[in-house]
Amino acid sequence: MVTETDKAVEDMVSRTLKNKYPTFSFMGEETYQPGSRVGPEPTFIVDPIDGTTNFVHSFPYACISLGLSVDRRPAVGVIYNPFLDILYTGIQGQGSFMITRPGGAVLERRLPLAKKPAPLEGLAKALVAVEWPAARDGPNFAVKADTFRKLTASKETGGCMVHSLRSMGSAALNMCHLAAGQIDLYWEGGCWAWDVCAGWCILSEAGGIVVGGNPGQWEPALEERKYLAVRPAPSGQKEIVTEFWDAIVGRQDYEV
Amino acid sequence: MVTETDKAVEDMVSRTLKNKYPTFSFMGEETYQPGSRVGPEPTFIVDPIDGTTNFVHSFPYACISLGLSVDRRPAVGVIYNPFLDILYTGIQGQGSFMITRPGGAVLERRLPLAKKPAPLEGLAKALVAVEWPAARDGPNFAVKADTFRKLTASKETGGCMVHSLRSMGSAALNMCHLAAGQIDLYWEGGCWAWDVCAGWCILSEAGGIVVGGNPGQWEPALEERKYLAVRPAPSGQKEIVTEFWDAIVGRQDYEV
Repeated sequence: MVTETDKAVEDMVSRTLKNKYPTFSFMGEETYQPGSRVGPEPTFIVDPIDGTTNFVHSFPYACISLGLSVDRRPAVGVIYNPFLDILYTGIQGQGSFMITRPGGAVLERRLPLAKKPAPLEGLAKALVAVEWPAARDGPNFAVKADTFRKLTASKETGGCMVHSLRSMGSAALNMCHLAAGQIDLYWEGGCWAWDVCAGWCILSEAGGIVVGGNPGQWEPALEERKYLAVRPAPSGQKEIVTEFWDAIVGRQDYEV
Repeated sequence: MVTETDKAVEDMVSRTLKNKYPTFSFMGEETYQPGSRVGPEPTFIVDPIDGTTNFVHSFPYACISLGLSVDRRPAVGVIYNPFLDILYTGIQGQGSFMITRPGGAVLERRLPLAKKPAPLEGLAKALVAVEWPAARDGPNFAVKADTFRKLTASKETGGCMVHSLRSMGSAALNMCHLAAGQIDLYWEGGCWAWDVCAGWCILSEAGGIVVGGNPGQWEPALEERKYLAVRPAPSGQKEIVTEFWDAIVGRQDYEV
């Protein structure tokens, strides 16, 4: 689903950035050429509207996601939800922030929001973000649907009994909620670099981690296309990753 | 999951309301006695925190839901999300409203937000809210999990190919999103009167409808426990209800 607005926003963003940073590369969802890859040079990686389905339905959970990669790693992230007027920013080595305007006055808070985030205590206490995929049949759809069910099912029936699953429809905002410490895990497959680059930087700077969406991948590429993200926590991140990987029913496979 | 905050808020609300309206009845989630029913007299029906799982995780998608029923029908609804500072109100016969404070100035908008809401054009174009249930095994869990999968699956594999499913974790706020015209349908089972009373009034006043969550129930009771809600639309409401009912895999059964 692509709207005229997606195209117009990307056009505006790419013109502005190319004008100011003529030597940087640019990758955007609407102008992406299949097969092209992020290079080591500084590269703007942009999703003009993340959460397009929400946008089409006027559900106020959509954003612009502006990332910059250097050496194929997320280096800067800016995500703005204009409907709720919430801005998230992150710069490698300089932390990440959430900026709101309660009552009209600008309020900038460092992420995660809690000064002392709680330890992660395993899947059975986790709030997990997932999204129903755009492709609605085939093996990848089955892996997601089967895993969603296993994650929620009772332990007595072989499930993980997570606190619950959330599906809001924006990969970028999911990453921000993890950075803020409001959701514990986000498991995704089928994403592209522009869906995750900005959010990945914001999450990493807050103390979260991003690993692969299939078991065993501790150092995923920016263009891995399947990810598991974990919120900032003083302990339990690696343990909850392996617990989650064990719960996946099958294996996601996307062309890179 | 019940927090001390749930109890403290309900205690504050019930004391305040009983003091001002001593002849009205009161039903609240935290003080509910199993088996008690809403009567025909004016009854405050209150959920001190709807979206408790979100609240526990600091995910800012929780609210207080204050309803008033008269003759066992929703007559007044007030729902407030303090984390996003969004207030929804509805009074029988007087319309419903959404009140925000962008930049600090109060903005009151009548619901639905669009002056001319779009017609409903069937499930394949619908954004549908659902929630993973608290009870994670048995027949009701299977009905939900199987139906979620069927709703999302491709038409080629026997599914409905809805635009997508959303799960935000608050029945009351789901109803408000329908009233605003931001989500098309909300299907639920396992809810209680305090989860839906206020939102039902707000949705009805906006032009939406609430029917039963099992096929054939066009006039559900306040305490039906399973519902299908439809957003305001100039046409297509009844058609999408029957299309949805046909898609349900099995039948939900909750003690009333």
